[in-house]
Amino acid sequence: MTLQGHSIIGNSAVVGTGKAGRAMNPATGETLSPDYHEVSEAQANEAVAMAAAAFPIYRKCSIAKRAAFLRSIADQIEARGDDLAARGPLETGLPEGRIRMETGRTYGQLRLFASVVEDGSWVDARIDHADPDRQPIPKPDVRSMLQGLGPVAVFCASNFPLAFSVAGGDTASALAAGCPVVVKAHHSHPGVAEIVGQAVQAAAQLCGLPDGIFSLLYGGGRTTGAALVQHPSIKAVGFTGSLAGGRALMDLAAARPEPIPVYAEMGSLNPVFILPEAMAERGQAIAESLSGSVTLGVGQFCTSPGLVVAADDDQTAQFTTALAGKQQEAAPGVMLNSGIHDAYESSVTQLQEHQAVTALAAPVQQEGCLADPALFEVAARDFIGDSALSSEDFGPSTTIVKHGSKAELLELAKNLEGHLTATIHGTEADLEANRNLIDVLETKVGRLIVNGYPTGVEVCQAMVHGGPYPATADGRSTSVGTQAIYRFARPLAYQGFPQSQLPPELQDANPLGVAQMIDGNRHV
Amino acid sequence: MTLQGHSIIGNSAVVGTGKAGRAMNPATGETLSPDYHEVSEAQANEAVAMAAAAFPIYRKCSIAKRAAFLRSIADQIEARGDDLAARGPLETGLPEGRIRMETGRTYGQLRLFASVVEDGSWVDARIDHADPDRQPIPKPDVRSMLQGLGPVAVFCASNFPLAFSVAGGDTASALAAGCPVVVKAHHSHPGVAEIVGQAVQAAAQLCGLPDGIFSLLYGGGRTTGAALVQHPSIKAVGFTGSLAGGRALMDLAAARPEPIPVYAEMGSLNPVFILPEAMAERGQAIAESLSGSVTLGVGQFCTSPGLVVAADDDQTAQFTTALAGKQQEAAPGVMLNSGIHDAYESSVTQLQEHQAVTALAAPVQQEGCLADPALFEVAARDFIGDSALSSEDFGPSTTIVKHGSKAELLELAKNLEGHLTATIHGTEADLEANRNLIDVLETKVGRLIVNGYPTGVEVCQAMVHGGPYPATADGRSTSVGTQAIYRFARPLAYQGFPQSQLPPELQDANPLGVAQMIDGNRHV
Repeated sequence: MTLQGHSIIGNSAVVGTGKAGRAMNPATGETLSPDYHEVSEAQANEAVAMAAAAFPIYRKCSIAKRAAFLRSIADQIEARGDDLAARGPLETGLPEGRIRMETGRTYGQLRLFASVVEDGSWVDARIDHADPDRQPIPKPDVRSMLQGLGPVAVFCASNFPLAFSVAGGDTASALAAGCPVVVKAHHSHPGVAEIVGQAVQAAAQLCGLPDGIFSLLYGGGRTTGAALVQHPSIKAVGFTGSLAGGRALMDLAAARPEPIPVYAEMGSLNPVFILPEAMAERGQAIAESLSGSVTLGVGQFCTSPGLVVAADDDQTAQFTTALAGKQQEAAPGVMLNSGIHDAYESSVTQLQEHQAVTALAAPVQQEGCLADPALFEVAARDFIGDSALSSEDFGPSTTIVKHGSKAELLELAKNLEGHLTATIHGTEADLEANRNLIDVLETKVGRLIVNGYPTGVEVCQAMVHGGPYPATADGRSTSVGTQAIYRFARPLAYQGFPQSQLPPELQDANPLGVAQMIDGNRHV
Repeated sequence: MTLQGHSIIGNSAVVGTGKAGRAMNPATGETLSPDYHEVSEAQANEAVAMAAAAFPIYRKCSIAKRAAFLRSIADQIEARGDDLAARGPLETGLPEGRIRMETGRTYGQLRLFASVVEDGSWVDARIDHADPDRQPIPKPDVRSMLQGLGPVAVFCASNFPLAFSVAGGDTASALAAGCPVVVKAHHSHPGVAEIVGQAVQAAAQLCGLPDGIFSLLYGGGRTTGAALVQHPSIKAVGFTGSLAGGRALMDLAAARPEPIPVYAEMGSLNPVFILPEAMAERGQAIAESLSGSVTLGVGQFCTSPGLVVAADDDQTAQFTTALAGKQQEAAPGVMLNSGIHDAYESSVTQLQEHQAVTALAAPVQQEGCLADPALFEVAARDFIGDSALSSEDFGPSTTIVKHGSKAELLELAKNLEGHLTATIHGTEADLEANRNLIDVLETKVGRLIVNGYPTGVEVCQAMVHGGPYPATADGRSTSVGTQAIYRFARPLAYQGFPQSQLPPELQDANPLGVAQMIDGNRHV
């Protein structure tokens, strides 16, 4: 593999006309060749114009062809597994095993979306037959199904260089929905982005798809990123990153002459509630697993548990001691880049200096991009309403919040803003006795976990990796799992159409065998 | 029936502390008692606070109870049919028959949503079972279903005093999804609003629902309306009205600390394309039916056909003559209020003064709120790109656009912005020869109609009353039909939950018998 440092605009490799940048190895501080030049606004516009031209062709592709494209991308990525395993650790500090596992998740996800496309039922085909004899007016024949929105701009995340990047969940679900994609690479892993971009480009050419169905651009968030979001031909945006970055894109999108949806996954604290019986029965075991979840991937998961809530009693004191020990034992890890590392150092310093906070495992400031795991403690009465304590602390740190009563526990839960997940450790009796806590948490998150850990987001039919703002831009959506496809689709109704002009999914003969709702009855 | 002039805040009747206003009979110019006082911001906030308090109770109601509530509202409205038929025409200028038909549509719609709630399948229940033996890591048990967003603010439309008003589609679908509703009445039909508000309040009390599940407020758009949209406890907005009004709400909602979705249906031109063979075979018949569609309800439908596109040839000339005759014959009608009337007079005057436009049926300026039907003509080359000709002309007027070639026809279609509907009149051969026109229109509208008329929006499973901006705020949604419920819901996942703590829809035993997707397979 030789990296070229080129952006990909449709079938072409293009050298950006803007300034050059290089990846940095966060473990050594060395820069990595080649240079990646930022594209100009004109180059970004060209990619979008080509995506807009590709859309009418791509949306009319057979579902077999669309599924074959997704499978071909998966195959092309799988074939580049060794290249990714070689380059990935250099750019991200993540171990090779993690890169290989994430590569598998990425091509597995593409194959899952291929099966969703082939199954065809996601379009929610509905047929209401006519009744010409209905009084006082005849009933028309009306049919509807979901269709792709149009070209989608995807912003890569730093923390998942494969699964939430060039051909990650946003791209896979947008392509599955019938939308061309223009990707803005993350500056932190340009080489991995290029390898995956070449895989997608190769698949598009192998499958004979229109030039422009996919582009990959190197550029800045405030330049290339803003140009993409503001381009009139872009119809939706996928993003994974910080609250500040996501909100900036939301504001740009809302201010357009034609506002468009932004699906920004912006992270969260992912509170973990440990109930009394569970604490008594297995507090030590929870401390061990929880520390593993907090430090997994150097805490650089959107679902990393940043908050632990428990009663202020002797059992929790023992748990706290055990958790502090585990956090102190855990070795410092290399973070993804210096920006993330500096933000972590700054947020743990703020916590250490906060009057109400006690450092139970104080982090030691490290050289380079190394981050030391940490544990803090605060009383629930101090935590509630202090927004400085509620902001995400991206890294291998967590804060235990101790409450004095069930009423205080509920008050804390009610005061939470939106999070991706909440976790409850409890026995059956604990859960029964705290049903009102579950009821509150149901309104605060996208996923509730019992007796598990929030890290590890299964790619499946039922997964919801979303949650109310500020966890995401749009709590009505998920960025992981098959339901992610709904983000990039809209319903379209056909009234009085002859069979020959209907999409196959809406024909009475149902040649593709998709699930249909016929006159209100579901058929699978 | 005695109207009280009271706002409804939960179980209470409340006199607004703001300025008083009265309905006006648009046919006579007389004002109608009683006074309706605008609520203060504090009163609006009280209604929202009560809705927020009601939400945790209402969302945990059994689906049987929720369905019973919707049916009870329907019954209460049906029981007030004579009161509505007496007051409605006075406030709106609409004939009694229309008010009675719209009342039937409104309670029918509530009963349809009751059946959707009872069926339970709309929640898209998904169950992915665990696989503890999976390598390299065990697969967790993950389940998901849709749940209500929270309190919804609904803004009533002027043009459908029942079906898009206090207990119209927005309210019915929000209540069905499990969301409390705070309605802002339209100043144009306060009495009808009060009668329907009392019906909903009576139903809520009969069904033992929490105080605050429903409120009805009289107030201004920039005061009460803005207060509702900006209140942190409001989680979504339903609106039907003008582009300016809808966009203002969208901008307010997007600028909130926590942005929320706005579903604003803002109307459109609803272009009608007449293809050559259809024009030759039945141009006269189309002219007659089209004039009926344009003048139906004095043209005050969001789906009123404001644009007719046809080839510039002899057959179209005959059609045009026939259509002009029908428009001239059609009697002036009473519009809903003076604001709408003045806007119509202003827009037809602008068209008459436009250099490229010919008035084929010039409207005669009328007294009071009367509006005279009109027909204008313009060449496609002048229409394309002249945004002054593309804005909605709300009233009994339409414009015929004549094109010189199929290329010009396609160019016109490609340049359309988002509309609620597009209609094509064509023989099978016409449609086959103009498949590329259909392909373009699929990307421009929410509903495509063949050989019919866009007015008359069937309330059914497949209806899409939506369309890309500026037809609506959010082209991913519909405000009519059962799919409207999806606007007010979000998915929530449960991981590792014991059966006893799962909602019934997600239990293995499936006690409610809802459709479930189990390990990727759909079961109905």
